[in-house]
Amino acid sequence: MGQAREVVVEALRDLLGKKGVRIQEDDFLPDVIVKPESTEQVSKVLRICNDAGQAVVPIGGRTGLVNGLWQTDGEIGLSLERMNAVEEIDSVNRTMTVQAGCILQVALEAAEDENLLLPLDLGARGSATVGGNVATNAGGNMVIRYGMVRDMILGLEVVLADGTVLSNLNKTLKNNTGYDLKQLFIGAEGTLGVVTRVVFRLRPLPVSQNTALLAVDGFSALEQLLRWMDTHTAGTLSAFEVMWPEFYSYVTRDGSNHRPPLPAGDSFYVLVETRGSDPVADAERFEGVLGEAMEAGLVADAVLTRSQAERNALWEIRDDVLDFFNLGPFIPFDISVTLDRLESFVAMVRSRAEAIDEPICILFGHLGDCNLHVLLGSRRSEAFDPAQIEEIVYGAVEHFGGSVSAEHGVGLAKRSQLHRSRSEAELRVMMSMKHWLDPKNILNPNKIFAATEIAAQ
Amino acid sequence: MGQAREVVVEALRDLLGKKGVRIQEDDFLPDVIVKPESTEQVSKVLRICNDAGQAVVPIGGRTGLVNGLWQTDGEIGLSLERMNAVEEIDSVNRTMTVQAGCILQVALEAAEDENLLLPLDLGARGSATVGGNVATNAGGNMVIRYGMVRDMILGLEVVLADGTVLSNLNKTLKNNTGYDLKQLFIGAEGTLGVVTRVVFRLRPLPVSQNTALLAVDGFSALEQLLRWMDTHTAGTLSAFEVMWPEFYSYVTRDGSNHRPPLPAGDSFYVLVETRGSDPVADAERFEGVLGEAMEAGLVADAVLTRSQAERNALWEIRDDVLDFFNLGPFIPFDISVTLDRLESFVAMVRSRAEAIDEPICILFGHLGDCNLHVLLGSRRSEAFDPAQIEEIVYGAVEHFGGSVSAEHGVGLAKRSQLHRSRSEAELRVMMSMKHWLDPKNILNPNKIFAATEIAAQ
Repeated sequence: MGQAREVVVEALRDLLGKKGVRIQEDDFLPDVIVKPESTEQVSKVLRICNDAGQAVVPIGGRTGLVNGLWQTDGEIGLSLERMNAVEEIDSVNRTMTVQAGCILQVALEAAEDENLLLPLDLGARGSATVGGNVATNAGGNMVIRYGMVRDMILGLEVVLADGTVLSNLNKTLKNNTGYDLKQLFIGAEGTLGVVTRVVFRLRPLPVSQNTALLAVDGFSALEQLLRWMDTHTAGTLSAFEVMWPEFYSYVTRDGSNHRPPLPAGDSFYVLVETRGSDPVADAERFEGVLGEAMEAGLVADAVLTRSQAERNALWEIRDDVLDFFNLGPFIPFDISVTLDRLESFVAMVRSRAEAIDEPICILFGHLGDCNLHVLLGSRRSEAFDPAQIEEIVYGAVEHFGGSVSAEHGVGLAKRSQLHRSRSEAELRVMMSMKHWLDPKNILNPNKIFAATEIAAQ
Repeated sequence: MGQAREVVVEALRDLLGKKGVRIQEDDFLPDVIVKPESTEQVSKVLRICNDAGQAVVPIGGRTGLVNGLWQTDGEIGLSLERMNAVEEIDSVNRTMTVQAGCILQVALEAAEDENLLLPLDLGARGSATVGGNVATNAGGNMVIRYGMVRDMILGLEVVLADGTVLSNLNKTLKNNTGYDLKQLFIGAEGTLGVVTRVVFRLRPLPVSQNTALLAVDGFSALEQLLRWMDTHTAGTLSAFEVMWPEFYSYVTRDGSNHRPPLPAGDSFYVLVETRGSDPVADAERFEGVLGEAMEAGLVADAVLTRSQAERNALWEIRDDVLDFFNLGPFIPFDISVTLDRLESFVAMVRSRAEAIDEPICILFGHLGDCNLHVLLGSRRSEAFDPAQIEEIVYGAVEHFGGSVSAEHGVGLAKRSQLHRSRSEAELRVMMSMKHWLDPKNILNPNKIFAATEIAAQ
C-alpha cells in the first residue's frame, strides 16, 4: 500500500470505525473495502477519496459478468452492504424505496408481501443488490412486458465523485422539472456516481400465470409466433424465451438434470408465459391463442403446465446454463441483433465457429428483446482461444449492426468492443461526460473506458 | 437586426437557399426562422451559429404551454418542418423511424395503417411534432399503461450545439453499450441538442376498446377504484381520467356542447378505458370488474359505451377545456402530487383560492400518473392576478412535495418555480450539464434556466 493510500485508509478508518473498513488480499477485488452506513458517510468517503485522488469501486452483490468490480490501479472498494434496508413500501402510490445494498430477492419478497410486484426477474436475484441492478440497468426475463430497470425507476439518490448528494426520491410517473438527472446514473456502471437509494414503481401482483413450452419449426414461424403472442395476449405476455436445438437437446439429454417435456429434434423451443388478473379467463385465453397458433402452423408441438412444479421444471431447463460447463471452456456472450437479421447473424456465427476445433456453440435468448446469449468455446481446452472466439461473435455483431452488450454492460470485459456498436462521436461525448462529472476519474476508473483513453481526449 | 446577426443570416441563406430562410416579424417567435432539409444541414446551421455565438430556438409544432419557443435575446428559429417524413415502419421489429418535424397525427396514422400503435395520445396531436414531443418528454392519456415518450424511444439522432451529430438509431429493447446518451436530450426542451430523428417502439394495435364514465363518492373510493382497476384489468388499463365535480357540471350544463351521460352531483367523474386483444372476452371482463367495483361501493353510478360515437362523446367532455375560457381568465396548471397527499393538496388550493374575488377553480387529471391539471383564475378580469394565483398553486405543490411540472415542461413559464421541486444541488448540476454540452449557451437560452443564472455558476 502506497503512503498516500495509507493516509486515505487511515482517514476512512477514523470516519467509519474499525467495522467499517475491511482489509483482505484478493486476486481481483480491491484489498481495502469500506462499508458506510448512511448516504452522509458515502458522501464523506467520496470527498476524502476525491481530495486525495484515490480511486473507488462501488461494490454490490458481485454477480456482474463483465469484471466491473476488478481492481485496476489500487482502487478502494465501496460496499453498500450495510445500507440494505427496504425503507418503505407505499401501497397507496405503489412504490418502494430501497437502499442500494438491499439484495434483490429481499426487495422482491417485500413487495410480494404487499401483493405488489417489482417486475425484475434475473438469475442472480439471490445475491445481486438493487444498487448493482440500477448501475448496470439490469434486464432479465420480463423485459418484454415491463422494460429494463431504467423503466421501473421513479426516484434515485446518488452521490457524485466530489461528495455532492443528488437526491430526488420522486414517486410520480410524470415529473418534467428540468433535466432528468437520474437517467445519467442508470446503467453507468458506477463510473459517474454511487447510487444510494432507489424508488421503484411497483405493479399489481398478477394472480394468474400460464406457462408453456412450444416446439417451433423454422425461424420464420418463430418470429411470426412472437408477434402472434404479443398481439393476442394484450399486455400480459411476460416471457418469450427461446432455446436453439443444441441448447434444448443437451440440457434434456439422458443423464441430465431434466426430463424432456417435448422430444428433441425441432428447430426451436420456446418458453412462453403470461401473467394476468383472472385465473380462469386467462388460462382459457392462453390455450385459445396457442391453439390458433398451432392451427396456423406456427407451433409444431406444445406442453402446457398444470402446476407450479411443472412450471418450475420448464424454467429450470431454461436456466440450467451451468450444465454447459461440462462440455468444455466457453465464453458466454450477451448481445442484441434485430429480429430481421438474427437468422443471418446466427448462420454467420455458426459458419465461422467451424474454424474452432470441436466447437461448442449454444444459443438462447430473450427474443422479444432481440437479446441473444451465445456460448462459444471448444470441447478441447487446448483449442480454446478467447481472442478468436470474441472476434467471431463481435465481428458478426458489428456486421449486422447489433449491440455488443444487451443487458450485462461493458465493465472491463467489453471495453475494447464498444467501438463496434457506438460511433466515434458517441464515444467522445461519453468520455467528455465522464470527465464532466468525475474530473479526477476516481469513480470505477478503467471501466467502460480506459483512463488513458479519457486522458487522451 | 444587429450587424453580426446579419452576417449569420446571410451565411444561413447561402447554405439553405431563399426557401430555407423565412423572415417575418412576430411578437413572440424569432423573426428569422431557418428550415433545413437534412441532418447535415442542421449540423451546418448549428456550427455557423455556434461559431458566431448566435442563439437558436428549435421550433416544432408550437403547441407547447410553457413559452418554450419565445424569443428572449435575438434568437434565430430552427424549424424542422421540412424534415417531416415517416422514414420507416419496421413491422418485423415493431419500430418506426420518423424525422423530428413529422406531425404526431401523421405518425400515429402511419403506424395504425400497419396495425401497430404508437402509444402517444395527446390533445395537440394534429399540430405537435414528434421532435417537440421528444424534447418535452410528452405525456398524455395513456401514460398509465405505456409510459411517457421517454419510455417509447429506442433510438435517437441529435445534433449538438457545435454541430456534432450523435446518431444511434437503435431498434432493440436491450442495449447497454456505455452511457445511454439519448436520455440526455429527452425532455431537455431543446436546450442541450436538436432532435432530428427518432426510433419509436410500436405496440400491437389493440382491437378491443372498452370505455365507461363512472361517478364516485369521495376520494377514498376514488383511489381504491384506481387500484382496483389497475389490479383487475391486468396490463390493459389505458386511461383513468378524473374530473372534479365543478369540471363535470360546468361542461355538461344546460346550453353546453354536451349532454350529461350521468347526473351531476357526485364528488368525482372518472373516464376509464381498457384496450385489449379480444373484443368479446375483454368486454365481459370490463363489465365484470366494474360490476364488482359497484358492489364493493367504489362506484356510485356508471355509463358504459356501446359505440364509437358514445365513446367519442365521453372523451369530448373530458377534452373540452376550452369551454372554461367562457368563465373568465385563468392559468392552466400542470402539476403532480402523490395520491396520498392529493386530497389535502386540493383542499389547500381551494381554501387559498377563497382569497380570489369570484374564483374559478377547476380540477381534472390523469390520476394514475398523479398528474393534476388546475385551472385557477377569476370570473372578474380585473381581479385576475397571475402572481397571486401562481403562489396559491405552486406554494401548495411545494408544501406537499409535488412537482411544478408533470408533463408540460419548464420553458420560460415555470423557470422561477423550479426551486420548489428540485434541490440546490440538483439545479447546480443541471446548469453545469448545460454548460458542458452547450458552453456558449446558444441552444434555446433562457429556457429552464436564465442565461444569467448559468453565467453566475
